[in-house]
Amino acid sequence: MYLGDNYLIKSKTGLVLYNKYAKDMPIFDYHCHLNPKEIYENKPFANLTKAWLVEGHYGDHYKWRSMRANGVSEEYITGNKSDYEKFLKWAETVPYTIGNPLYTWTHMELVKYFGVNKELSPSSAKEIYDLANEKLKSLTPRKMIEMNNVKVLCTTDDPVDSLEYHKLIKEDKSFKVKVLPAFRPDKAVNIELDWFNEWVDKLEDVVGYKLTDLSLFTKALKERIEFFNQMGCRISDHALDTLKYLDANEEEVNLAFIEKRNGKKLTDDQINKYRSYMLVFFGKEYARLGWSQQYHLCALRNNSERMLGLIGPDTGFDAINNSVDINALQKLMAKLDSTNSLPKTILYSLNPNDNEALIALAGCFQNNTKGKIQLGSGWWFNDQKDGIKRQLAALSSMGLISNFVGMLTDSRSFLSYPRHDYFRRIVCDFLGELIDNHEYPADLEFVGKIVQNICFNNAKDYFGVDE
Amino acid sequence: MYLGDNYLIKSKTGLVLYNKYAKDMPIFDYHCHLNPKEIYENKPFANLTKAWLVEGHYGDHYKWRSMRANGVSEEYITGNKSDYEKFLKWAETVPYTIGNPLYTWTHMELVKYFGVNKELSPSSAKEIYDLANEKLKSLTPRKMIEMNNVKVLCTTDDPVDSLEYHKLIKEDKSFKVKVLPAFRPDKAVNIELDWFNEWVDKLEDVVGYKLTDLSLFTKALKERIEFFNQMGCRISDHALDTLKYLDANEEEVNLAFIEKRNGKKLTDDQINKYRSYMLVFFGKEYARLGWSQQYHLCALRNNSERMLGLIGPDTGFDAINNSVDINALQKLMAKLDSTNSLPKTILYSLNPNDNEALIALAGCFQNNTKGKIQLGSGWWFNDQKDGIKRQLAALSSMGLISNFVGMLTDSRSFLSYPRHDYFRRIVCDFLGELIDNHEYPADLEFVGKIVQNICFNNAKDYFGVDE
Amino acid sequence: MYLGDNYLIKSKTGLVLYNKYAKDMPIFDYHCHLNPKEIYENKPFANLTKAWLVEGHYGDHYKWRSMRANGVSEEYITGNKSDYEKFLKWAETVPYTIGNPLYTWTHMELVKYFGVNKELSPSSAKEIYDLANEKLKSLTPRKMIEMNNVKVLCTTDDPVDSLEYHKLIKEDKSFKVKVLPAFRPDKAVNIELDWFNEWVDKLEDVVGYKLTDLSLFTKALKERIEFFNQMGCRISDHALDTLKYLDANEEEVNLAFIEKRNGKKLTDDQINKYRSYMLVFFGKEYARLGWSQQYHLCALRNNSERMLGLIGPDTGFDAINNSVDINALQKLMAKLDSTNSLPKTILYSLNPNDNEALIALAGCFQNNTKGKIQLGSGWWFNDQKDGIKRQLAALSSMGLISNFVGMLTDSRSFLSYPRHDYFRRIVCDFLGELIDNHEYPADLEFVGKIVQNICFNNAKDYFGVDE
Repeated sequence: MYLGDNYLIKSKTGLVLYNKYAKDMPIFDYHCHLNPKEIYENKPFANLTKAWLVEGHYGDHYKWRSMRANGVSEEYITGNKSDYEKFLKWAETVPYTIGNPLYTWTHMELVKYFGVNKELSPSSAKEIYDLANEKLKSLTPRKMIEMNNVKVLCTTDDPVDSLEYHKLIKEDKSFKVKVLPAFRPDKAVNIELDWFNEWVDKLEDVVGYKLTDLSLFTKALKERIEFFNQMGCRISDHALDTLKYLDANEEEVNLAFIEKRNGKKLTDDQINKYRSYMLVFFGKEYARLGWSQQYHLCALRNNSERMLGLIGPDTGFDAINNSVDINALQKLMAKLDSTNSLPKTILYSLNPNDNEALIALAGCFQNNTKGKIQLGSGWWFNDQKDGIKRQLAALSSMGLISNFVGMLTDSRSFLSYPRHDYFRRIVCDFLGELIDNHEYPADLEFVGKIVQNICFNNAKDYFGVDE
Repeated sequence: MYLGDNYLIKSKTGLVLYNKYAKDMPIFDYHCHLNPKEIYENKPFANLTKAWLVEGHYGDHYKWRSMRANGVSEEYITGNKSDYEKFLKWAETVPYTIGNPLYTWTHMELVKYFGVNKELSPSSAKEIYDLANEKLKSLTPRKMIEMNNVKVLCTTDDPVDSLEYHKLIKEDKSFKVKVLPAFRPDKAVNIELDWFNEWVDKLEDVVGYKLTDLSLFTKALKERIEFFNQMGCRISDHALDTLKYLDANEEEVNLAFIEKRNGKKLTDDQINKYRSYMLVFFGKEYARLGWSQQYHLCALRNNSERMLGLIGPDTGFDAINNSVDINALQKLMAKLDSTNSLPKTILYSLNPNDNEALIALAGCFQNNTKGKIQLGSGWWFNDQKDGIKRQLAALSSMGLISNFVGMLTDSRSFLSYPRHDYFRRIVCDFLGELIDNHEYPADLEFVGKIVQNICFNNAKDYFGVDE
Repeated sequence: MYLGDNYLIKSKTGLVLYNKYAKDMPIFDYHCHLNPKEIYENKPFANLTKAWLVEGHYGDHYKWRSMRANGVSEEYITGNKSDYEKFLKWAETVPYTIGNPLYTWTHMELVKYFGVNKELSPSSAKEIYDLANEKLKSLTPRKMIEMNNVKVLCTTDDPVDSLEYHKLIKEDKSFKVKVLPAFRPDKAVNIELDWFNEWVDKLEDVVGYKLTDLSLFTKALKERIEFFNQMGCRISDHALDTLKYLDANEEEVNLAFIEKRNGKKLTDDQINKYRSYMLVFFGKEYARLGWSQQYHLCALRNNSERMLGLIGPDTGFDAINNSVDINALQKLMAKLDSTNSLPKTILYSLNPNDNEALIALAGCFQNNTKGKIQLGSGWWFNDQKDGIKRQLAALSSMGLISNFVGMLTDSRSFLSYPRHDYFRRIVCDFLGELIDNHEYPADLEFVGKIVQNICFNNAKDYFGVDE
């Protein structure tokens, strides 16, 4: 099979670093979209299509996009065709994904989870499908996590979530992996969206009192943050598809909140002031508790209204927006910094051109913590060789790669953990190449430690979570 | 000579791919600026300067720019110096174009068309000039096309064009190459420009009735599209130097059209609504006929007013504009997609930073056709090693390179066809490197097919034109 | 030690080019921030911390940023800790700067100035500190300059500066290096800033008459330009953190100037018109005298107000702004070009994504001078391997690298000259790679000349300064 020992690694020293230091490190998956209920219930998947391609309302939209780009009709993707027919269309597409991470991920996953040492194609599809389905009978979600040596994984959770499954998982002593919630209060920030009031109603139910003004609203949110904190949460996450920063005082934001609650349409100015105010509010709370926050910038979502109507969001119709407005981000971070309440922050932009501006801005807010402000790992469309290399090049040449908290899975699938191995190979190749090119001494022990830190230890220290 | 077998190719496998699969493939030149009259008349060029550097009102502005950057005075470029003096200044400049595609193109062209195996420099200039001039006596435009194994070539034509030379070429059975028109209705879209009314007058003459309102105007354009279609046209092309999308209804656009026809100055809003409306109109027509459209984005033209006054447009004073507004492009494409009437579309931006956002957006509108929405090959300033590699990296890692329709010449010169060979070498190196780096199995037969598809077959299938 | 002969150079031919043509070339440092007073007085530094890390009000903010990113507390950076304690914190940080130019620069400087062949780390810190301090007793600023074979260096000077130290240095025949002033009139352009009036008051004192209107103000500035010119100045420099171009007439700009002098707050429109007008004014003056101007675009400064309050500007809290508005830059340059009074211009953007748009725009204003409009060398955050390579790739593939004026130090430190060697290695690797990859003939003598031109000769010719 083509996946030999050294795939993705050209550098001689890189291969040594990988084999000796990287490949056996555990995983700290600080951001993913796994469903805690599925982890708790631990039900096996019916077949490889369900585990890999499509299951109920969601699935692997990376694969779906490549199938659509290959001319596959929607009935074989999210439609009514049988699971095996869908799998076969995927198998037909795979050989044409040359140069796309899907090709490598697919085979890494087949090897890792199913011991399949064969390229997926129409001719191998049946054999692989049957073999994988057989294995899937006993390969439950928890086993998938454990076989990747995951020590900690952080899900993505709504502030109103009861975290009941996190509790149940914690109480189940047979499962050693730490499954922690992460706080994602997008619905509290996105006042411009239709479902804002409905969500605030839910929050009222959860806290048990009416949220008639901003101070009660933020009081309720603080309670939820406290609750998440007690449940082991140390990380928050904000999807900032666009970011405009406007300084705002409590009075005007309170008014906007009340108007919105009363069904009024807010002005752009009100919306941006509210959003800015809330991001500052959240930042301060996180800083107080020693949490880290993640800003995910520049996604452009639901671009085909037609398909949104047919099959809903998160189905492969998202794209990359214009570059982040660095001025806006600077103002937001400076506002928090001005009162020394900027929390540890990881910056991701979906637009890879932003790497340099983000890491340079990060360098302006470092403060007594190793790598306090970080440039996040290549995100979404950038989670591939070229995107990862560009992130590493920007990070190392304009910041300190040594403190990088490294890879996250950011996946809805239990089968995505080999992406960490993919990432580690590229990191080792990158660092090994520096040594091969005489840009750093061949002190493999020291660089090996940096590698291990990027693989696992930095995340553990940065997020302050014990294994 | 330095151009051995393997120039531009570092990868071992890439060299095999190139030699075995790429180099003998025919050419489908789906976008160029060759003059059909010159093809039909087939007159030889008087000398190498006329064929290569400057002829009448236009010439090779790539070369002109490099000569100007090298301090050559304008009289040797577009001025009154003799053809040989101009050639000599070019020969003096060539050795200093190290790292520029001009250096490689120059020598590929000398080898291909004239059998010259020598570097062009002041010391070789006279010998090369004389030798090439001798060959040019019998090396007519048609021979230049044929010796490059071109099967189909698409010119760039105004909707009011009679396409008489296309007819004549078609009728001339001695010339086997298919020469098809391509539809470029920029003058119908650019209502903000001075010559709009003059152009609509011409269209009135061509269709034979007055275009007193928008419905008559679009009726006339539909007739021209039908006519082009009958003449074998399958491709349109839009130069969208800037793109702002505003939803517009027929009434307000009709009013804008009538006001403009009556000599009124339109507001920015009117202009952008008109332009948006027309792009939607054209898109629907193309979709109906199965045509493909090309959007050429982000050119910044005629930057030196001084030189525009002296020697006119398209003389080497254009540049790269700010990044495309992805929101605007998304809105335009989504509008067409909403009624399922988005045609096959190829997106080019002159700003190479846009590659990633364009291919990600393309992925949102794929629909039952292989590679329906494509990221175009490195355009203009990006048609060189670095630009081509960046396009390939973005395309493959965020889309499917397998369905790429590949290279176009985009040139006014019959001597530019070796750019296809230049491109193919880089593609083979890129794919070969994936195999060398163990990112894809060494199935050379399969990858060789992908190579051949990118060289020729994909374009044939995508544009729906038989050889 | 890891810095062998070939560090940073992978290409075989590149190594030959470096050794035979690059490494012994002298330096023309056309832009730096060295203090002429320090050069004249030539006092030795007390210790390596003072020479390298921090001295009085300023220091090496590159190093400071990396220390902060590594979690070092401010008291060890700009605070009250002892010089050796500060040095030790730096030594602790160095091994973690893998992949950052600081790692390579640090050791190049230790070798060059102090003969230290050892990696800096906590374990070697004491030995290196003592050894360097011993050497520093006799290693004065002038010796540091001379040992790098610097022929010309241009400082950065305010128009109101008396240039007294430049005079004194010139008169001191024991020092052979040409130390020329460069004209940086930012304070004359930045009418929006608080200290504008204070600065105009100073200019009044210097010229000896009241600047009651715009014509007197520009008269005074012309006098200063004449004075700088007599003092050997041939270069100006503009920090254009943001650039908005608005056409403006003298009347309205005069009014804005008078209003500002009278303490009124100007509108954004007035500010941008004033700024545009002044940049045109300066450009014309430079063109008249054959000077070159440098535009430094897209810095985003003083991002942490908190730290600005504590330790002031230029202390490591600057970042990269959004991409330059190419339309604005085009308008400014076209305005000057329209009257044939655009001077030689070097364009730098702190945002590396701008390389391509800048070099393409530069190509529109070339005019009878080799490389008249240039893309500047990787600036500030981009002055590292990746940034330099990106600049070289854009420059060569869209312009002429042969005419490049090459490297500048842009440093406040006498210890930064090895950055030229760092740059030369990358240039030689880049050009050698073109030859190794058969993109250019192996005419080492000719390419060696291009190398030498980029290292030194081009700058000498371009700026018109004899050694």
